[in-house]
Amino acid sequence: MTKKNSSYAASIKAKDRANNLHSWSAQKNLDPKVITKAKGIYYWDHTGKKYFDMSSQLVNVNIGHGNKKVIDAIKEQADKLPYIGPAHAVDVRAELATKLLEVAPDNMGKVFFTIGGAEANENALKIAKMFTGRNKVMSRYRSYHGATYGAANLTGEPRRFTCEPGIPGFVKFFDPYTYRSPIEFASEQEASKYYLDQLREQIIYEGRDSVAAIFLETITGSNGVIIPPQGYLKGVREICDEFGILMICDEVMVGFGRTGEWFACDNWDVTPDLITFAKGVTSGYVPLGGVLVRKDIAEFFDDNTLMCGLTYSGHPMGCAAGIATLEVYQEEKLIENSRTMGEVLGEELEDLKAKHPSVGDVRYIGLFGSIELVKDKSTKEALVPYGQDPERIMSKILASLKDKGFSTYSHENIIIIAPPLTIKAEEIKEAMSIMDQVLTEVDEMIN
Amino acid sequence: MTKKNSSYAASIKAKDRANNLHSWSAQKNLDPKVITKAKGIYYWDHTGKKYFDMSSQLVNVNIGHGNKKVIDAIKEQADKLPYIGPAHAVDVRAELATKLLEVAPDNMGKVFFTIGGAEANENALKIAKMFTGRNKVMSRYRSYHGATYGAANLTGEPRRFTCEPGIPGFVKFFDPYTYRSPIEFASEQEASKYYLDQLREQIIYEGRDSVAAIFLETITGSNGVIIPPQGYLKGVREICDEFGILMICDEVMVGFGRTGEWFACDNWDVTPDLITFAKGVTSGYVPLGGVLVRKDIAEFFDDNTLMCGLTYSGHPMGCAAGIATLEVYQEEKLIENSRTMGEVLGEELEDLKAKHPSVGDVRYIGLFGSIELVKDKSTKEALVPYGQDPERIMSKILASLKDKGFSTYSHENIIIIAPPLTIKAEEIKEAMSIMDQVLTEVDEMIN
Ligand SMILES: Cc1ncc(COP(=O)(O)O)c(C=O)c1O
Ligand SMILES: Cc1ncc(COP(=O)(O)O)c(C=O)c1O
Repeated sequence: MTKKNSSYAASIKAKDRANNLHSWSAQKNLDPKVITKAKGIYYWDHTGKKYFDMSSQLVNVNIGHGNKKVIDAIKEQADKLPYIGPAHAVDVRAELATKLLEVAPDNMGKVFFTIGGAEANENALKIAKMFTGRNKVMSRYRSYHGATYGAANLTGEPRRFTCEPGIPGFVKFFDPYTYRSPIEFASEQEASKYYLDQLREQIIYEGRDSVAAIFLETITGSNGVIIPPQGYLKGVREICDEFGILMICDEVMVGFGRTGEWFACDNWDVTPDLITFAKGVTSGYVPLGGVLVRKDIAEFFDDNTLMCGLTYSGHPMGCAAGIATLEVYQEEKLIENSRTMGEVLGEELEDLKAKHPSVGDVRYIGLFGSIELVKDKSTKEALVPYGQDPERIMSKILASLKDKGFSTYSHENIIIIAPPLTIKAEEIKEAMSIMDQVLTEVDEMIN
Repeated sequence: MTKKNSSYAASIKAKDRANNLHSWSAQKNLDPKVITKAKGIYYWDHTGKKYFDMSSQLVNVNIGHGNKKVIDAIKEQADKLPYIGPAHAVDVRAELATKLLEVAPDNMGKVFFTIGGAEANENALKIAKMFTGRNKVMSRYRSYHGATYGAANLTGEPRRFTCEPGIPGFVKFFDPYTYRSPIEFASEQEASKYYLDQLREQIIYEGRDSVAAIFLETITGSNGVIIPPQGYLKGVREICDEFGILMICDEVMVGFGRTGEWFACDNWDVTPDLITFAKGVTSGYVPLGGVLVRKDIAEFFDDNTLMCGLTYSGHPMGCAAGIATLEVYQEEKLIENSRTMGEVLGEELEDLKAKHPSVGDVRYIGLFGSIELVKDKSTKEALVPYGQDPERIMSKILASLKDKGFSTYSHENIIIIAPPLTIKAEEIKEAMSIMDQVLTEVDEMIN
């Protein structure tokens, strides 16, 4: 690093610390790296240090950094028509909707575009209430759906607490988190039955005709990559059909190849009524989100006013980036790569679990994986208690990973692993050998 | 228009109608224009027809369309680093925060970036609750703060209804809408006193220590450009100080030169505790929004966790566009132009009011104006009743304007006029002569 670069970086950092508020943190002890470059599965800080981006930033840069095709599409749209209001028809807005419906489950009919994941869920919520005429809505405890009031009230974990007192009619149920179930199940089907029976009973207590929608992350994401057991999603679909409830899959994190399919629900051939998306749709290059809407629900709004709107709905820059990103998934066969590289990642994770006393569980599907840290494999006692980490143990583990060039994030006692879908087998192995080292440090902590 | 263009436009329109859901409408009778080009204060549809953009789209394209400086900044950032997660420090994110704090009121200390106006308000809400430890929040009936749950519950008008049952503790009060006050006031000061006394009394009934924040559009925007009477905002400031309530000015629509000042609150030298912004900060070229936070409130989050976050917080593309947009305001002297051209617009509006029986009131400040249509000037009976327009009279008036090349939007019985701040005197006159013609048609309707 030259002297000039170093003082430039110092001035950026000083401005950042003086003027920017960062998410989900107390600001005093933050020491953000100044990032100057990102390419493929890597990014670099101002000292020239290189990191494996093993979380694709916030599990959104699925196609990797610096993709030329998407960058060119952005530049072209900037020259052509960067913005026009949502009431108009625009080529990129119409083309992206068309392309999304080609890759989405067949029952989907139209798209409403938002700018991020939280508003995708906010709008799905409103669509479900308008369509069903019902007010209650159900979602799960170990879930994150965004940080605006509606999305936060759908969220089950502590990030919802600042949006309380809660909105009337938002009801929570338990996730099929079999690793921490009160019961040892003999099979996935048995686990599904247990959780589905509970859900069905809870709906009856809430009122058979009162629930507009059940929201679920198809695979719980930031709360630890909790993969539904066989039969669970189909069972939720059946319960929804029985009670006239809309099944809304939040695919903000798991959509667009993350799990080896376009949408995570494709893994179980389940067709939700609404799908919310964001993140992977543009791989973060320009903000975009949206709601895929089942055909007859879309038709309901032929005659009924859709009471949804935002200034940036269907923003042309986001749509242009989205079209190019979808083409990258197709041309570079990234959905397929997610599936095949997912096997490599899975093997690595299983090896780590076998080797390290501190690894209680590993979960993975496609290039979406997690490592759950425990104090004791047999008791499954979590490395840090839920919602509490006064000694900042998890931060220290993440810092040690980062120090060695492995960048990712954690939630509670769980580390997320979700590299760009462009990653190669040898890169996975190289990165995971860093993880191996750090897990040895964790093993020592619990000794 | 060539044949090729025409069939291209037809295919875009067909795709749009088949696949896109548009905001705030029943979809069946929509007939969106296909927009292919926009430059300065104009945009063009696929037939080559040109429109005065007299609402700057959704009162956001303040610098006008196709500004080369902003486009170049977008292209440069796309090449450099289109996205990196919000935890990092990045040059454009730090620079934009710094620049914003330079133009914002002096008491502001830090910026939290969002992607749009609704989330700006959502995050301001959370910041106010965290800082004060209180739960209630007050806002006004004739207001719009966005369409996500929290922002919609702040909103007073019918666009909040799909987000009900409402969030506990969201309390509404009356706006100082003097044109439709129950009392004929002798002066603006008297009007302010009347509304402030009501507000103060209401706060006492709600509980002296229970209100976290009062949200107000500094000047009510989409609900009709309702300009606070002299002394009102200072009075709200004093009431907030008396009860330890945060004063939050929603400057999403009125910020960035719209009213002839950087922020609308500058017109009355009032310093809010939080300012929310979006729209004009990038003039729509890339989605961006945010919250400006008073110094000591920002410092509160040195040690207390800021429970706010979104994937696209401080998106580098938005920040790069924002920096360039702020420079355009400065270099092209657009704040000043808004003030001087505002006088031209004001004269035109006064002429229309004097001339047309259907014009009950006109209101304007900077390049932010409105025309309130009535059936009878003396009774002030609105051209269409509040929340009802079964014969779609307002749509017909807007369509007639559009037909003649004047594009804008309306709300209830009020037409918004808010052209890009680059507009010239002769362009205002040319556009307003179209308005003059259409108002003659409206006069005939009420005869
Ligand atoms: C499953 C899920 N839903 C919604 C969101 C919220 O998206 P955004 O941060 O774009 O508001 C996230 C973000 O992490 C998510 O993982
Ligand atoms: C005053 C005000 N606040 C908030 C909003 C919501 O902004 P957005 O549409 O970007 O969510 C608007 C939009 O028109 C607005 O005018």
